[in-house]
Amino acid sequence: MQYIKVFAPGTVANLGCGFDVMGLTLDGVGDLMEIGVEKGAEGFSIRNESGVVLPEKIEENVITPAVRMMSEAYGEPVRIEIRLLEKIVPGSGIGSSAASSAAAVYGINELLGRPFSGRQLVEFAMQGEALLGGTAHADNVGPALLGGVVLIRGYEPLDIVRLPVPDNFFYAVVHPDIVVSTKMAREALPREIPLAKAVTQWGNVGGLVAGFALGDVELIGRSMCDVVVEPYRKGFIPDYDLLKSGALEEGALALNIAGSGPSVFALTADYDTACRVADRMKAHFDARNVGCRPYAGRVSNVGARIVE
Amino acid sequence: MQYIKVFAPGTVANLGCGFDVMGLTLDGVGDLMEIGVEKGAEGFSIRNESGVVLPEKIEENVITPAVRMMSEAYGEPVRIEIRLLEKIVPGSGIGSSAASSAAAVYGINELLGRPFSGRQLVEFAMQGEALLGGTAHADNVGPALLGGVVLIRGYEPLDIVRLPVPDNFFYAVVHPDIVVSTKMAREALPREIPLAKAVTQWGNVGGLVAGFALGDVELIGRSMCDVVVEPYRKGFIPDYDLLKSGALEEGALALNIAGSGPSVFALTADYDTACRVADRMKAHFDARNVGCRPYAGRVSNVGARIVE
Repeated sequence: MQYIKVFAPGTVANLGCGFDVMGLTLDGVGDLMEIGVEKGAEGFSIRNESGVVLPEKIEENVITPAVRMMSEAYGEPVRIEIRLLEKIVPGSGIGSSAASSAAAVYGINELLGRPFSGRQLVEFAMQGEALLGGTAHADNVGPALLGGVVLIRGYEPLDIVRLPVPDNFFYAVVHPDIVVSTKMAREALPREIPLAKAVTQWGNVGGLVAGFALGDVELIGRSMCDVVVEPYRKGFIPDYDLLKSGALEEGALALNIAGSGPSVFALTADYDTACRVADRMKAHFDARNVGCRPYAGRVSNVGARIVE
Repeated sequence: MQYIKVFAPGTVANLGCGFDVMGLTLDGVGDLMEIGVEKGAEGFSIRNESGVVLPEKIEENVITPAVRMMSEAYGEPVRIEIRLLEKIVPGSGIGSSAASSAAAVYGINELLGRPFSGRQLVEFAMQGEALLGGTAHADNVGPALLGGVVLIRGYEPLDIVRLPVPDNFFYAVVHPDIVVSTKMAREALPREIPLAKAVTQWGNVGGLVAGFALGDVELIGRSMCDVVVEPYRKGFIPDYDLLKSGALEEGALALNIAGSGPSVFALTADYDTACRVADRMKAHFDARNVGCRPYAGRVSNVGARIVE
């Protein structure tokens, strides 16, 4: 049996206007796991040594459907052992499940001698997302695997565009102790939206993509607003408008809900501002007796990787 | 009185998915006018020597509101004379009115010593669009002034992002003898659209912007589809689906309706293919006894300019 340690980063999906089609990679927060692979043998096990509470049954772990699809595509017998060492808390909104699936399929692919492309790895890892949310989406697993900013141009067939992030670009994320299930967050949304709002939104998506592609941090900040989803979801987060105006006051370029929430993220042009914004967001939740975990760091161009 | 000759190119708005937010610049087709400016004097005249039928009253010419707003912003008396020499046929869908307004404000700005920025010129020229369509939009005047591909990120305030077009990138445009007024084309659209379709559309807008920003011609082709507007407007064009499949068969990367129609445009990776596609589209309309004017040329990075 061959073993490696793999890290896959936390990610922020949606990025405001890019609902369901964009995601971005965080540095300094993610899942760490040891993966063992033995060709010619059979079997699959997951041991959770992360200290984070996860479903006991292997069928309920997001890694399982991802690894299963990968094994089927591989077509030859292989024994896989996974030992979770560090884990993003599930339900955080910063791609906990995506980090697990991404690390697993990335590591297995390395140990098998890289039979699969990055796009195929995304397709495998998406299966883990389907276990949770009902639909297989790629806006967290894409960046968790590939790094940078990932645009999911379309799903039929899967068409992934990777954009680099500017070198000096930072995030503040706060994960408040509020439960917002993906299902709740989905059901809060209308099935139909005014065409005029859709046009505003895709103008911003265009601006956001252009901002990343051209390395224009100000344009990224101006474009990262959401007239379609945020109005329906901000009610899950206490005094969201005040939280946002506070972050912008501290110098954030933009603030929005991370994925389907409850985490909130802000982007900044320097690390000090990211820390100040994270503190300000923490103070916001503290003042409302809501516990929270703040993070600040660099937006990353690197996705899943071997660390040992 | 000082005189110059100015050319402003034809443009294609919308580009499929980028409804109301994107436009692209055509080479080899546009408006040519002579502009005279005399500081300290008063007056404004337009003489139409283009051979194209235009409204007789100066108040009904799209150039007038653009020049009027510009004169007000200038704040000092100035006499302006415009002589239209060549003119895109109005109602073509390739930015006839935008070419007129853009050439006028560009040329006047040059003669005044460039007191206004490109963005201000776009705002002036938009007033001409408002005369026709009821709302001031910039997806034709933006590229007519600035060249390349222009994204209108937002209108409040006007936020224009210019993207370069790849060097070897060509168009075929056919203008059929069908009347589709901007009003008719607007009224064909629903006021509300399914959220799922909006998401598909903004994934494509992201892909289209990324394609231009990264110079990825294949990505531009894949992204230039429209699930929101085209289904409602294609009925104005006889056997549109056949027209499209024919163009794709000839090697077009994508085909869509130019602006609000009735012109149809296709993009190609080489000039020969553009010519073949234009011929094929002409044959389509010929076979249905619809007269048409085909054009083929290079997509341009250059907007309004002095030619003499």
